[in-house]
Amino acid sequence: MTVGGDLLIGASRVAGAAGVFRAVDPATGHTLEPAFTLADAADVAHACALADAAFDTYRETAPAERAAFLETIASEIEALGDALIERAMSETGLPRPRLEGERARTCNQLRLFARLVRSGDALDARIDPALPERKPLPRADLRLRRIAVGPVAVFGASNFPLAFSVAGGDTASALAAGCPVVVKGHPAHPGTSALVGGAVQAAVARCGLPEGVFSLLFADNERAGALVSDPRIQAVGFTGSRAGGVALMRIAQSRPQPIPVYGELSAVNPVFLLPAALEARADALGAQFVDSLTLGAGQFCTNPGLLLAVDGPDLDRFVASAATALAQRAAQTMLTPGIAEAYRRGVVRLAGERNVECAARGLESGEPNRGQAGLYTTDADSFLAQPALHEEIFGSTALVVRCRDAAQLTAVARALEGQLTATLQLDADDARDTTLARALLPTLERKAGRILVNGWPTGVEVTHAMVHGGPWPATTDGRSTSVGTAAIERFLRPVCYQDMPDSLLPQALQDANPWRVRRLVDGNMVLGGDA
Amino acid sequence: MTVGGDLLIGASRVAGAAGVFRAVDPATGHTLEPAFTLADAADVAHACALADAAFDTYRETAPAERAAFLETIASEIEALGDALIERAMSETGLPRPRLEGERARTCNQLRLFARLVRSGDALDARIDPALPERKPLPRADLRLRRIAVGPVAVFGASNFPLAFSVAGGDTASALAAGCPVVVKGHPAHPGTSALVGGAVQAAVARCGLPEGVFSLLFADNERAGALVSDPRIQAVGFTGSRAGGVALMRIAQSRPQPIPVYGELSAVNPVFLLPAALEARADALGAQFVDSLTLGAGQFCTNPGLLLAVDGPDLDRFVASAATALAQRAAQTMLTPGIAEAYRRGVVRLAGERNVECAARGLESGEPNRGQAGLYTTDADSFLAQPALHEEIFGSTALVVRCRDAAQLTAVARALEGQLTATLQLDADDARDTTLARALLPTLERKAGRILVNGWPTGVEVTHAMVHGGPWPATTDGRSTSVGTAAIERFLRPVCYQDMPDSLLPQALQDANPWRVRRLVDGNMVLGGDA
Repeated sequence: MTVGGDLLIGASRVAGAAGVFRAVDPATGHTLEPAFTLADAADVAHACALADAAFDTYRETAPAERAAFLETIASEIEALGDALIERAMSETGLPRPRLEGERARTCNQLRLFARLVRSGDALDARIDPALPERKPLPRADLRLRRIAVGPVAVFGASNFPLAFSVAGGDTASALAAGCPVVVKGHPAHPGTSALVGGAVQAAVARCGLPEGVFSLLFADNERAGALVSDPRIQAVGFTGSRAGGVALMRIAQSRPQPIPVYGELSAVNPVFLLPAALEARADALGAQFVDSLTLGAGQFCTNPGLLLAVDGPDLDRFVASAATALAQRAAQTMLTPGIAEAYRRGVVRLAGERNVECAARGLESGEPNRGQAGLYTTDADSFLAQPALHEEIFGSTALVVRCRDAAQLTAVARALEGQLTATLQLDADDARDTTLARALLPTLERKAGRILVNGWPTGVEVTHAMVHGGPWPATTDGRSTSVGTAAIERFLRPVCYQDMPDSLLPQALQDANPWRVRRLVDGNMVLGGDA
Repeated sequence: MTVGGDLLIGASRVAGAAGVFRAVDPATGHTLEPAFTLADAADVAHACALADAAFDTYRETAPAERAAFLETIASEIEALGDALIERAMSETGLPRPRLEGERARTCNQLRLFARLVRSGDALDARIDPALPERKPLPRADLRLRRIAVGPVAVFGASNFPLAFSVAGGDTASALAAGCPVVVKGHPAHPGTSALVGGAVQAAVARCGLPEGVFSLLFADNERAGALVSDPRIQAVGFTGSRAGGVALMRIAQSRPQPIPVYGELSAVNPVFLLPAALEARADALGAQFVDSLTLGAGQFCTNPGLLLAVDGPDLDRFVASAATALAQRAAQTMLTPGIAEAYRRGVVRLAGERNVECAARGLESGEPNRGQAGLYTTDADSFLAQPALHEEIFGSTALVVRCRDAAQLTAVARALEGQLTATLQLDADDARDTTLARALLPTLERKAGRILVNGWPTGVEVTHAMVHGGPWPATTDGRSTSVGTAAIERFLRPVCYQDMPDSLLPQALQDANPWRVRRLVDGNMVLGGDA
């Protein structure tokens, strides 16, 4: 398996005309071969033109055909074998088990979307039959289905080189919806991206689909902006920094035709340690917390960066337990030199804030790009007064906020920005905790996309009920999720057909229901098997 | 029934502190009593604060309770009796039958949303049971429901003083979703707004809901902007001009926390006259078209302002038939002096464009604010070259575009902006028409929210399968509809609960399913009755 440095535009491999770059092995700081080429404006436009040309054909593929395509992508990724894992290890510093797990998740995700597509549920087919005898006016026959919005630009994330990258969640859900995808690969793992992109390209060919269904570009900021500006692109998926996401949003909103940007930006994922739980298991919670905080060098969107509890001896025990565990943790390789440097600076900034104390640091390392874990504490008055304490530090550092009482804990919850997750550690049999949980829940529901009890937020299942999203600034659009089958809704829009002859109707809406999809008929759900 | 001039802020009637205004009877040009007061910044903030205070209670009302509230609003509106119709007639110039029909539609709409709420379908409840034995890691119990996004600002539209105004579609769907609503009433019909607002206020009290569930303000542009800027407002519903909608969108996007604006802006609603249909029934189509064009003085978002056909004797017959019918139409009172003047100027502008010919004008009138119908023709080359010919003229004027052949007809379709509707007049038994329809449909699906066959776009049913929406600039967000039960989705966002004890879960997700809502369990739909 060789890694090529070309762009994948439709069925072609093309050398980009805007320069070259190389990946860096963050564990060593050494650059990796080969050189990858950067797209120029014409490359971007070419990929978008192919995507647009493929759109009408691809969006009308039958459920079985589109599902088979998603499954073929999964098989092609698996067929890359160990070369993919090895390249990803060298480009990201992530260990083998993590990457093997992530590959499994990526392929399972594609197959879950294939099942969703096959079911036809996402078509949301609805039929309101005509009422020719209705007075004063008859009612027309009205039928609704969801169709794909158009070609989608997906920006690969740095921190999940497989599951949130070239064939990750955004790509899988957009393809499942019927949208061609133009991926802008993350420069931190171009070799991994190129291998996966080749797998998708092979799946397109194997399934006989129009070549424009998928392209993979590498691009500088200017050309990435041109991708978002291209009039053929109809939606954007992005996971990354707040600044990056906001910049793309501004470009998308300035177009003659504005388009949605689904950006996952930043979160500190507050964990509330309720009194009875803290009393019963402060020591265990401290150790578990450090496991979650340091997983993957803390480079998860759902990393628990903020702990909130009523101050007292139980919280002291928690902090002591966490500090002990954390102090023994080795520094871990971070994804890129830039991320490692931003992390280092973020910790320095936090440590310099007023009324912030260091409870523990992890082990140091002389190796490049290692992230040294950190645990800091402050009081709630300071937290409420200092906006800088609310900001995410991407990596294994967390802040414990000591609250005076339950009322202040609730006030701090209200002061938080939008979050991907919020977690309650509680004792369900103790009225102190359940009462406080009931008081907190309305606030947490307003703030977060997922609320956990007695778990830790890292680890996001890909299922039907998962929500990986949340109010601004956790994401740019809190009405949706980027993980789980509900993610397909981002890339669909409803179309109504009025009095259309059966032969002209899309198959999902024809009387005979040839695809046997479930349909809402006059407001009543009729399952596909009943048709 | 007396009409008061106060703002309705929660349960209070408050004189606004920012001046007064009066409605104008467009049929006579005379001002109407009483004076209505305008909100100042404190009034806006007060309404938003009450809405926010009501939110957590209101959004957790049980389906039966919230449904009863919607039904009570409908009853209270009906209890206003003829005073509402008479006031609306004097403020809008619309005739009694139209307003009685609109009142029925408004109340039916509230009752349809009540049925949707009672069903619990919009909760989209999903349960992915825990898999404690799964390897390598167990799966947590994951449950999803949709919750209301927060307080919503609704801007009443001028052209539907009941169905798109104070208790119209946006308000009904937001209340159904569980969102408190702050309405900014349209200044063209303040008395109608105040009467309906009083009915909603009475329903809030009668149902024992927190007063902040509903407020009605009148406001100038600055204070209307402040309403959109208020940090407690979480979404905006708007129907009106493109300039107005874009201005609100810019304000919403400039907030520290951007929020969605669901604006319905402009459309010309193209009608394609296919060859066999034109050959068989050009005369009848011409007369039907004029009925649709002149309905309600052409003041519908779905008014058919653009006709497209292959040039020839059949199209000549259509134009002649339409011209004959239109020339006999009386000028109709338009909604406001401003709208009448904008219409007059729009027609003058169109008539002055290069290669545009007048086919017919309706009857003139010496009375104030009358809109004189108009029918113009041009050729497709000119239409493609002149962007001004694509613009909506709000009122009873349409443009016929003569295309050289079917290929040019398709090219014109591709050049159109986003639309609320697109209509095909076709003969389903003639291969010429069905072939051309098949060629056009992929383009029309990209361009419009609703595609009609052998009907006219005016008249929008409120059902489950209706889509009143469409790609930019028909609306600011083509992923949704403002009419029909799917409109509720605009005001909902998903929240996931992970491993939450049953007693802390919202009722829709509890094991016992006390509300008997349908749920997606591990990907399989389980209907509420099966629970």
